[in-house]
Amino acid sequence: MTELADRTTGPSQTPPTTAGPSLAAGSPAVDVAALGELLLGKWADTRRASRALAGLPELHKTEGLTHTEHRKRAFGQLKILVDHGAVHRAFPRSVGGMDEHGGNVAGFQELVIADPSLQIKAGVQWGLFGSAVSHLGTGEHHKKWLPGIMSLEIPGCFAMTETGHGSDVASIATTAIYDPGTEEFVVHTPFRAAWKDYIGNAATDGLGAVVFAQLITRGVNHGVHAFYMDLRDPGTREFLPGIGGEDDGVKGGLNGIDNGRLHFTHVRIPRLNLLNRYGNVDADGSYSSPIASPGRRFFTMLGTLVQGRVSLDGAAVTASKLALKTAIQYATERRQFNASSATEEEVLLDYQRHQRRLFTRLATTYAAGFASEQLLQKFDDVFSGRNDTDEDRQDLETLAAALKPLSTWHALDTLQECREACGGAGFLIENRFASLRADLDVYATFEGDNTVLLQLVAKRLLADYAKEFRNVNFGVLARYVVGQATGVALHRTGLRGVAQFVADSGSVQKAALAIKDEASQRTLLTDRVQTMVAEVAVALKGAGKLPQQQGAALFNQHQNELIEAAQAHAELLQWEAFTEALGKVPDPGTKVVLTWLRDLFGLSLIEKNLAWYLMNGRLSMQRGRTVGEYINRLLIKIRPHALDLVDAFGFGPEHLRAEISTGAERISQDEARAYFRTQRSSGQAPVDEKILLARTAADAKRR
Amino acid sequence: MTELADRTTGPSQTPPTTAGPSLAAGSPAVDVAALGELLLGKWADTRRASRALAGLPELHKTEGLTHTEHRKRAFGQLKILVDHGAVHRAFPRSVGGMDEHGGNVAGFQELVIADPSLQIKAGVQWGLFGSAVSHLGTGEHHKKWLPGIMSLEIPGCFAMTETGHGSDVASIATTAIYDPGTEEFVVHTPFRAAWKDYIGNAATDGLGAVVFAQLITRGVNHGVHAFYMDLRDPGTREFLPGIGGEDDGVKGGLNGIDNGRLHFTHVRIPRLNLLNRYGNVDADGSYSSPIASPGRRFFTMLGTLVQGRVSLDGAAVTASKLALKTAIQYATERRQFNASSATEEEVLLDYQRHQRRLFTRLATTYAAGFASEQLLQKFDDVFSGRNDTDEDRQDLETLAAALKPLSTWHALDTLQECREACGGAGFLIENRFASLRADLDVYATFEGDNTVLLQLVAKRLLADYAKEFRNVNFGVLARYVVGQATGVALHRTGLRGVAQFVADSGSVQKAALAIKDEASQRTLLTDRVQTMVAEVAVALKGAGKLPQQQGAALFNQHQNELIEAAQAHAELLQWEAFTEALGKVPDPGTKVVLTWLRDLFGLSLIEKNLAWYLMNGRLSMQRGRTVGEYINRLLIKIRPHALDLVDAFGFGPEHLRAEISTGAERISQDEARAYFRTQRSSGQAPVDEKILLARTAADAKRR
Repeated sequence: MTELADRTTGPSQTPPTTAGPSLAAGSPAVDVAALGELLLGKWADTRRASRALAGLPELHKTEGLTHTEHRKRAFGQLKILVDHGAVHRAFPRSVGGMDEHGGNVAGFQELVIADPSLQIKAGVQWGLFGSAVSHLGTGEHHKKWLPGIMSLEIPGCFAMTETGHGSDVASIATTAIYDPGTEEFVVHTPFRAAWKDYIGNAATDGLGAVVFAQLITRGVNHGVHAFYMDLRDPGTREFLPGIGGEDDGVKGGLNGIDNGRLHFTHVRIPRLNLLNRYGNVDADGSYSSPIASPGRRFFTMLGTLVQGRVSLDGAAVTASKLALKTAIQYATERRQFNASSATEEEVLLDYQRHQRRLFTRLATTYAAGFASEQLLQKFDDVFSGRNDTDEDRQDLETLAAALKPLSTWHALDTLQECREACGGAGFLIENRFASLRADLDVYATFEGDNTVLLQLVAKRLLADYAKEFRNVNFGVLARYVVGQATGVALHRTGLRGVAQFVADSGSVQKAALAIKDEASQRTLLTDRVQTMVAEVAVALKGAGKLPQQQGAALFNQHQNELIEAAQAHAELLQWEAFTEALGKVPDPGTKVVLTWLRDLFGLSLIEKNLAWYLMNGRLSMQRGRTVGEYINRLLIKIRPHALDLVDAFGFGPEHLRAEISTGAERISQDEARAYFRTQRSSGQAPVDEKILLARTAADAKRR
Repeated sequence: MTELADRTTGPSQTPPTTAGPSLAAGSPAVDVAALGELLLGKWADTRRASRALAGLPELHKTEGLTHTEHRKRAFGQLKILVDHGAVHRAFPRSVGGMDEHGGNVAGFQELVIADPSLQIKAGVQWGLFGSAVSHLGTGEHHKKWLPGIMSLEIPGCFAMTETGHGSDVASIATTAIYDPGTEEFVVHTPFRAAWKDYIGNAATDGLGAVVFAQLITRGVNHGVHAFYMDLRDPGTREFLPGIGGEDDGVKGGLNGIDNGRLHFTHVRIPRLNLLNRYGNVDADGSYSSPIASPGRRFFTMLGTLVQGRVSLDGAAVTASKLALKTAIQYATERRQFNASSATEEEVLLDYQRHQRRLFTRLATTYAAGFASEQLLQKFDDVFSGRNDTDEDRQDLETLAAALKPLSTWHALDTLQECREACGGAGFLIENRFASLRADLDVYATFEGDNTVLLQLVAKRLLADYAKEFRNVNFGVLARYVVGQATGVALHRTGLRGVAQFVADSGSVQKAALAIKDEASQRTLLTDRVQTMVAEVAVALKGAGKLPQQQGAALFNQHQNELIEAAQAHAELLQWEAFTEALGKVPDPGTKVVLTWLRDLFGLSLIEKNLAWYLMNGRLSMQRGRTVGEYINRLLIKIRPHALDLVDAFGFGPEHLRAEISTGAERISQDEARAYFRTQRSSGQAPVDEKILLARTAADAKRR
C-alpha cells in the first residue's frame, strides 16, 4: 500500500513543498509484498518463525527494570526459547540438532526485535558456550555436555576475554599447565589483568564454562586452547574451590545479561576436559594436533567466533530497520511549522533536511541488509562444509570483519538520527530508539572491536595486493583500476580480488562524465579502494625488511589511511550487494525505486569522499558540484515511496512496539486540524492580534 | 605535571612508534595550573564552588536505580542544593537573590558532573519555572511565589511544550480565555495534541506551574502568554479540579526527572495569575502591553529561554571534558598488541588512529569551551542590563542558537568515541561514558531542537546579508571575502557581520599557499561561510515575492545548504573563540601547545569540508593533499602533552568517578609485565611452540 493511498483527507494534504513526482498514473510503484520477500532472503521461513516468536509479549523487553530484575526476566526467556525449539538448529544431529548453520543465525538475528539482551544472552549460551563445545570438542564432549547446554540445564560462559586482553586473544595470560602425575590441567590466572572479564553468565547464572587458556605441557606453550570447566555447584550455586569472580554490574545496555569476571587459583580439571578437536594432550603429557602450524591452529580454533560477527551484522541491520520504519511513519504524519500556507503545517518528511537525514540512512540500511544476506550465505557455505577450504574460511573472516563494523556503527547512527528526528517523543522509552541504541552500543566493540576488525581487513587487502603485484613495477600502480570481470569472484567470496590490473584507465574518465549510472558508480568506488590500497602498499614497501620497531612505526604512520581503505572496501561490498539484489527484482516499478535508492547510497558514498575524487582527478570540479544536486533530486523521487520502502521490512505492531508508529500521531493531528477548521467555519475563532493591527492600520489609512 | 614525568618504569617505556618529539629539554611544556585557570573563565570561583558541591557523594548519580527511585533521589538532592544556597544567584535581590546571571549559569553548568538529572531538575525548578515567574511576572508575583519556589516549598513546572508543538511555540493550542464576569482566565486544552508534554516535575512533584497559553480576551488572540497555576493540592498531592495528567514514564536518560503530561479542562485561575510584565488584562478585559508589536512581544517573552540554551552549551562542554580526561588517561596506560617489540605492548595513545579519534575531539572541546565562555559573558551582559538593547538580545539568541547545537552534538559524539576507545571497559556504567551519553542525548533536541536552531541562525545570516547587500550587484558576490576588521565586532556580538565586502580576494589565494598559519585558517573558514550564505541568498532572491507556497518550496530546496552554512558559521565562531583565547596565554610553552591544538581544530574543519574548498578553487589539489599529512604531524606533536591538556580541566577523582581514570589500569599492566619479566629472567618460562618449531627446523637443517 502506498502512502498516498493511505491518505484520506483529500488533496489539500498533498505535500505542498515537494516539487518531485507524486504517485500519478504511470509513475513507478513498489510491490511491497514481493520486496518484503526479497529482503527476508534465503532463510525467509526461519526468519518469519523467529519473528513470530519475537512478537510474543513474554519475550519482550520490559523497560525500567533494575538490572537484577532484567537478568531474571532474560534467563526465564531463554527457557521459552528452548521450549519453542528455537535455538538448537546449529547443533550436531547426534545430540538432536539439525546441523543447520545459516538458518540458525538468520533466526537468531531476528531475536533482537524482542530484546537485545535476550538475543545476546542466547548468543552467549548457544552461540558461544555451546558452539565452543560443539566445534572445539569431540564426540564424548558432545554427549556429555551438549544436551544440558541445549536444554539450559547447564547455563554457561564463554570465558575468553580477559581484563588485560580483548581483541588480542593470542596474548591472554590464563594458563592451563598439564600435570601428568594426576592427569589434570591446572588452570590459573597469574595476575589481575588475566581475570576473565565481561563474560556473559559469569556474574550469577553460569554453572559451566569454556575457559580459554595457554596450554602448557612439558614446558612448552602450545598456545590458546579451550577447556571445559564446572564453575558453580548446581545446588548451592556457589563457586567451586579455586574459582572466584565479580559482577560487572550495570552496563550501558544489555542489562538482561549478567556479565562478570572470573579468576582461577590453581583450579584442577580432568585432562579430558580439554576440548581436543584441534589439539590433544595424552596422559603422559605429549601434545599432538591435526594442524601442525600453531598460527593456523589458533586461527582455526578462533574461527568459530566468526559466527558472532555474522550474527551481530544482521541484528544491527534489523535494528536499523525497526528505527527507520517508526521514524519514517511518524514523519509522514507529524506536522510542524506552516511555511507554505497560513493554516496547514508541513509534514516533517516533506522537509528536505528530514529527507536527507532519513533517506540516506534508509539507503544504507538496504545496502547493509543485502550485504548481510551475502555474508550469511557465505557463512552457511563454509559451516555446512560445502565450501570449507582454508581460503573460504579466510574470505569469510575478512568479509565478516568488513561488514560487521559498518552495520553496527550504522545502527547506532540510525537509531540516534531517528530518535532526534522524532524530537522529545523519540527520547521516550515507549518509542524504543533510546533503548535499542543503548543495547546495541556494545555491538561496536564486542565480538571484535570495529577498529581492530577494519585493520584485519586492511592487512588482507595489503596481502592480496602484495601477492598479485610481486613482480610488477610499482611506478605504474597509481593508474591501476578494477576490471569488471572480478564481479563474479566478489560475489562468491565476498572479497574482490584487489588484483585485476587494467592498463587502460579509460573507465575512470568516463565516470567523470556521468556519475549517475551504475557502471560509473562502480568504477569510482572500486578505483578508490584500489588506489588507496596501492598507495599505502607503496608507502609500506620494505617495511617488512626494517627492524621490527621501525617497521611498526612506519605502519603506524599509515594506520588511519589503512582503516579508511578497509572502510571504503566494505562500502564497495555493500554497494555491490545492493546492485546484485537489483537483478533479482522482477517488478519494474520496484526496480526503478530501488535503483534510485541504490544510487542514493552510491552517490552518498561519493559525496562523503568527494575531496578524494577531486584531488585524485577522478571527478572534475564541475562534476563534483552536481553530486549534491543529484542527491537532492533523488530525495524528491524517493519521497512518495518512503513508506512502502519501510513497510517492506514486514514488521507488525508486535515488533515495532513504538507508540508513534501506530498512527496515533495522524489521529492526533487530524483532531487538531478538524478543531481549527470547525472554529474557522463557525466564525467563532478569536481574531489574531496581528491581523487586527493590520486591519486597524488599513482603516487609519483609508480615513 | 607532564605525562613523561609520571612515568617511573624507565626509558624502555618511551612510546616506540611515536616518531614525533618527546618532552626533551627545550621542547614546550604546558603550565597546567595556569591553563586550568584560563579554562575556568570569568566565573572561576563560582565554578570551583559548584564543583566542590558536585563532588559530594550525596549529589552523585546512583546507577542502576529504577526511574522511581532515581526521581526520589533527585528531588532530595534539590533540597541539598537549597541548603547550600547554590541556586538562588539569579533571583531578584528583593526576594533574597543576587541578580547575578552569568555566575548563576556558570555554577549550574558544573552540576552536570554530579548527575545530569540533578542538573536538569534544578534547571526546571529554578531556571525555567522560577525564572519565568521572575522574568515574566511583576512585583506581587515575585513576593507571592518566588520564596516558595526558591526554597522548593513549591516544586513546579514550566508548561510550555505540547505534544503537538515543541519548537514552534507560537502554535501551541492551549487557550486562556478571559472571563470579565468572574475576573478569571479559563485555561483549556481543546484537543489531545494541546496537552502539555515532556514537562519536568509534572508527573509527580509539581505543585505549581507556569502555563503558556494563547491569551484571548474580547475575542482577540494576543498570542502566547504565561500564567501561574496551582496544579496539585499540597496536602493530598492530587490534581486540582479540571487538571489531569500522565506520566511520560521511562526515558532514554535523565530518569531522575519526572516528566509528564498535563491537560486542563476549563480550569479557572484569577486574572492576577497572568504573569503580566509584557502584557496585561484589566478587570474589564482590555489588553495592554508595553510592546506594541505582537511579534516582538513574543520574542521578548521567549527570550528567557535563551538561558537554558546557554546552560546546556556549557554543560555539554563539561561532559566532553570528563569523557576525554578518562579516555586519554586510560589510553596512556592501557597496552594492547606488541607491534614493535616481541615483549612490550604498545600504549593505546601511541596508535595513530587512537590519537586521531581522541585529539581531534579534544581540540573541538577546547574550541567549544572557549566559545561557551564568550556566550556566557554575552548572556551576562544582556541579562545584567549592561548591554540590553534589542540588537544585543538578538545577537545573544543567535549566538546561543549557533553554539548549543554544536556543543551538544559534540558531547554525544565525544562520549561515544571515548566509550568505544575504552572498549568493553567503556561500556561498564562504572566508567560513566554510557550513563552520561544517555543523559545528554536529549540535550540535542530540548531547549530548542538543534536542527531548528541552526535554521534560525541561517535565517539571521540571510537577513544580515540582505540588509548589507540590498544595493549591490549580485553578480560579483561570488568573490566576496571577509575583512579581518570585523574580528572585534564578532567578539562583541558573537555574530560576525556577514557583511564586509572585500573586492580583493588575494587573501584566499594566499591561503592556498600556506594553510597552517592563523590568518589562512581564518580566511578559509570565513570565506566558506560567506560564500555559502551568498550562494543561498542568490538562489533565494525573489523568494519573498513568490506566492507563499512556491516561496516555501524554493526555501525548502535549499534547506540542507542553509543548515550547513549555519553550522559553518558556528564552527567559525568556535575557531575565533579559541584563537582569541590564545592571546590570553602568557606562558610561551602553553601557547605553543595550544596553538597546535587550535591548528588541529582548524585543519580538521578544513579537512571535513575539503571538497568544498577544492571545488570552489580555494585550495589547490596539491595543497588539499597536505591537510591530512599536516594533521598527522600535529597529532605527533600533541601526543606528549595530551595528559596535561586534560589535566588542565581540573577534575578530581570525586568528579571523574570512573574506575579506569584512577590509574588502576597502569597498576594492572605493570603487574602483568613484572610477572612476565620475572618469569623470563628466572628461566622458568615455558617455551613457545613456535620458537621450538623454528629451533627444530634449524637443527634439522644443520644435521
